Amino acid sequence: MPSYKAPIRDLQFVFHELHQADETLSSLPGFDEVSADLVDAILEEGAKVCEEVLQPINQSGDQEGCQFNEGVVTTPTGFKAAYQTYIEGGWPSLAADPELGGQGLPETISFMLEEMLCSANVSFSLYPGLTRGAINSINAHATDALKEQYLPKMVEGIWSGTMCLTEPHCGTDLGLVRTKAVPKGDGSYAISGTKIFITGGDQDLTENIIHLVLARLPDAPEGVRGISLFLVPKQMPDTNNEPGDSNGVTCGSIEHKMGIKASATCVMNFDDAIGYLVGPENKGLACMFTMMNAERLAIGMQGLGLGETAYQNAVEYAKDRLQSRSATGIKAPDKPADPLLVHPDIRRMLLTTRAYNEGCRALAVWTAMNIDLSHKHPDAKKREEADDYVALITPIIKAFFSDYGYETTTLCQQVLGGHGYIQEWGMEQYVRDARIAQIYEGTNGIQALDLIRRKLFIHEGRLPQRFFNLLNSFVNEHQNSEAMNDFVSPLADALKLLEELTDWLVEQGKHNPDELGAAATDYLRIFALTTLAWLWADMARVALEKAPSDDTGFYITKLRTARFFMGRLLPQIYGLGRGIRSGADLMMEFTDDEF
Amino acid sequence: MPSYKAPIRDLQFVFHELHQADETLSSLPGFDEVSADLVDAILEEGAKVCEEVLQPINQSGDQEGCQFNEGVVTTPTGFKAAYQTYIEGGWPSLAADPELGGQGLPETISFMLEEMLCSANVSFSLYPGLTRGAINSINAHATDALKEQYLPKMVEGIWSGTMCLTEPHCGTDLGLVRTKAVPKGDGSYAISGTKIFITGGDQDLTENIIHLVLARLPDAPEGVRGISLFLVPKQMPDTNNEPGDSNGVTCGSIEHKMGIKASATCVMNFDDAIGYLVGPENKGLACMFTMMNAERLAIGMQGLGLGETAYQNAVEYAKDRLQSRSATGIKAPDKPADPLLVHPDIRRMLLTTRAYNEGCRALAVWTAMNIDLSHKHPDAKKREEADDYVALITPIIKAFFSDYGYETTTLCQQVLGGHGYIQEWGMEQYVRDARIAQIYEGTNGIQALDLIRRKLFIHEGRLPQRFFNLLNSFVNEHQNSEAMNDFVSPLADALKLLEELTDWLVEQGKHNPDELGAAATDYLRIFALTTLAWLWADMARVALEKAPSDDTGFYITKLRTARFFMGRLLPQIYGLGRGIRSGADLMMEFTDDEF
Repeated sequence: MPSYKAPIRDLQFVFHELHQADETLSSLPGFDEVSADLVDAILEEGAKVCEEVLQPINQSGDQEGCQFNEGVVTTPTGFKAAYQTYIEGGWPSLAADPELGGQGLPETISFMLEEMLCSANVSFSLYPGLTRGAINSINAHATDALKEQYLPKMVEGIWSGTMCLTEPHCGTDLGLVRTKAVPKGDGSYAISGTKIFITGGDQDLTENIIHLVLARLPDAPEGVRGISLFLVPKQMPDTNNEPGDSNGVTCGSIEHKMGIKASATCVMNFDDAIGYLVGPENKGLACMFTMMNAERLAIGMQGLGLGETAYQNAVEYAKDRLQSRSATGIKAPDKPADPLLVHPDIRRMLLTTRAYNEGCRALAVWTAMNIDLSHKHPDAKKREEADDYVALITPIIKAFFSDYGYETTTLCQQVLGGHGYIQEWGMEQYVRDARIAQIYEGTNGIQALDLIRRKLFIHEGRLPQRFFNLLNSFVNEHQNSEAMNDFVSPLADALKLLEELTDWLVEQGKHNPDELGAAATDYLRIFALTTLAWLWADMARVALEKAPSDDTGFYITKLRTARFFMGRLLPQIYGLGRGIRSGADLMMEFTDDEF
Repeated sequence: MPSYKAPIRDLQFVFHELHQADETLSSLPGFDEVSADLVDAILEEGAKVCEEVLQPINQSGDQEGCQFNEGVVTTPTGFKAAYQTYIEGGWPSLAADPELGGQGLPETISFMLEEMLCSANVSFSLYPGLTRGAINSINAHATDALKEQYLPKMVEGIWSGTMCLTEPHCGTDLGLVRTKAVPKGDGSYAISGTKIFITGGDQDLTENIIHLVLARLPDAPEGVRGISLFLVPKQMPDTNNEPGDSNGVTCGSIEHKMGIKASATCVMNFDDAIGYLVGPENKGLACMFTMMNAERLAIGMQGLGLGETAYQNAVEYAKDRLQSRSATGIKAPDKPADPLLVHPDIRRMLLTTRAYNEGCRALAVWTAMNIDLSHKHPDAKKREEADDYVALITPIIKAFFSDYGYETTTLCQQVLGGHGYIQEWGMEQYVRDARIAQIYEGTNGIQALDLIRRKLFIHEGRLPQRFFNLLNSFVNEHQNSEAMNDFVSPLADALKLLEELTDWLVEQGKHNPDELGAAATDYLRIFALTTLAWLWADMARVALEKAPSDDTGFYITKLRTARFFMGRLLPQIYGLGRGIRSGADLMMEFTDDEF
């Protein structure tokens, strides 16, 4: 059975030492209580819940799965009790608005906990995760009356939230939504239609479930401009704001999936269910995006969380399992064979996982810090800058983190050989659980299009320009440091490749928009790897400073991992870059019949 | 529910047109009856069995899985009847020796059928697959008495074979095997020990099961030089050579696995079971390798087979599913959205799969033809040459085919979006089934070491030298053809990179053997991609000749796919090559504690 220990030291390194987030955050209005001690205490308490409450029911949750009987979903054994512990600890309300009963802590802290949560139990993480998204959306767009009625219980976690977008015939293309909303004359609407793939659409963890549903008003224009957002409770709140009469919301079935089996994925039927408009008529998609952007970041954390726990378990196996001798001579003469860890190919798999994990952790915390800055900084220009970074990096975190999470859980499974394929050892569950993150909340192909077709161009190209300036400043600042050369030189090369490729694509896209589509996925990966190169170089900077006065070896390891990233992982960009430059025609010249 | 149609046209292209295998094979002794008509008839009959008998029980087999009750394994519903149909059709005996009741047809034909079998039902394919391996091993190394007693029934398929290598503490490192074989004085041995991960260790398809077991004689030297191979029947044949008394062989349990759930993976206990020595004492590993090399090629075919069926189902979905509009203008104005197939990123995923499938099919048939040449060619030098090619390419087929099979089934699953993650649609089964091929019969890491540490060096480097000469001849022959330039030029560049890298690695390996280990996996991929570039260039050669007189579009599509391969997939080698040159120290300088 796999185990998990939260990587607190590395989170502390990233938060305190790399990004110096204490200083930045505590200077923002409302965050004056944020201190290193507070952050460390939260990390340690959060780690306990993840290690002791949620991780132990991860494997059993997968094996048992959710059950569906006569319209009612039951979560696996132990989930209800764990959820109680989770909400009693106040974890759902960590970063929520104090006016709604939240603790008003920075998103940055919440992100670090999200990583642990995903390491411990991705299926579990989805229940509070979707609720958090729904809270953000309602808080940003609903009337005060709706907010007052629904949000405090959702923040507390005794009511949950969902996101009802997909229908059987449409997922990516929400312009095709058919669910109808008919005004009832009393300010409410009758919602009718079928939604699929609804995470937590029904469950036995919370007293009530608040659905956010995309639907079409009778006179709505066609396509995405005719979609509105509605709040639809499973049970109507009574006069005491307790769950009362059933609304016309039923769960039709649950899906049998490859993984995240302890997360209930529901078909939801709305049959003249009472709903309330959230945000303006026909602007539902924009309102839903408030939720989706946060969700996309959370989905990315699944890749990181699973990559981390997979790494830990693969390392343990590689140290224990004796198999063959080192090519450079016997390393464990008292044993019948050397541990797997002596073999370079095993190290390649482990270090690939580790270098991605630590680089992505640094990127996640940096992005989360920019979310906080974009919300709270007193200077509007600073808020705009931070918001630009978040907008640019969101598709990268969603897509790259989930892609590498699938790749690295697969690599860690490989370290276990045949045992990796057996359910009992738990590694194959990580792979199956990691796979969904590449698909939901907008497939990774859609993320790549969001980056290349939208984020590169909005505000006249301000987003990439700003980001490239940031990285160029870093390069300029450190390019004359000999100690930093191992890190800055590959970063500078990568940045040059990325900037030239970006210019080329922007130019190509003018004549043929398919050039952007054809490049999108590989371009996003180049962008992500270059971004990680910057963060690895920055981590090396800190490690070089601190290594001489440290006797734990932490900074030496960090430097070695940085070198591994630069030497082994970053060079992917050269193959990908060449592939992109071969152009879109290679794909587009095939007629449909040729497939 | 997924469907499957055998790619007969493409198999015919590869067999008849590309490799002109009819001519080559029919000139070999014993194969004079091989003709284009015969081959086509066998392909069509084989396709029927795969499409109509085996594919329909693939998904139900996954859902039901094998059952284990009180020591007895039951295969899923329909497997027993399908197996009867399969053996009644004479399929197991296709390429077997006529002296043993086989049909004595070329391995090349058997390979093409293996692809179809894996497309239709990988789990099923393993039962006859292991039997075929056991037959080869017994035929090559056992006494005539054992051969006469066991092989005819195994060739007929009414008895099956297994391969009992792995023990709980050892998989890759068979030197650690502990199972004991004690001479009983009557020429037989008492075999005792526990073997794990035994495919088909027990099942209800055949009347008897013949285990090939690695064990240690009492006075055997330590390590791999002290391992012998034994034939151990489940039931002792009686005087009529019918299954009689139980031998001391029991199935302890079956594994619960990520995939290939209809294949019984057994823990096998041998308790003073009667066994017979196969081959010389202490030479068991060499005898088992006769079986393992053939198995490794068959495992590679799983990647190809699954890649093919995944492609077909993803294409069907991409044509049917309407989602968003093309970036270059509406393509299906009469519909609410365009089919997925208009989007470049969808095409990227489909064409990646297709270009690998068709390239690997060409390589598989070429390799199989060389197996036949190595067995049958009257000229010893030609046999040696063919055997060199097979030895060199075997780890590449095992590792690269299974790696790309996992990658492309994942890509095809991605084409289906959320539906790809749902069991009902069948795509996630392909991914789970594909995953094991990277692990069993020697992990892909071990394959890469076999290539880089053994195959590059044996016979003083003759194997790669011969292969590089073959590819260089091709380049020289076609480098002045303008029409061929799109294909020959990238091939020539790739070959240059591969040859230079090979020289560099051979040099590095002299000083530090870990350089080979650190490069192995990426080197194998570069080798595989370069090999595919050669075959794609050769396919382009044929297509250029034939396209002008063809009105089906087949050759035009082939040329386009060749261009896609050269433009989009081959360039991976540039990133991988740079990564390898960063050297082993980046991995090896970490102490154990740093992980």
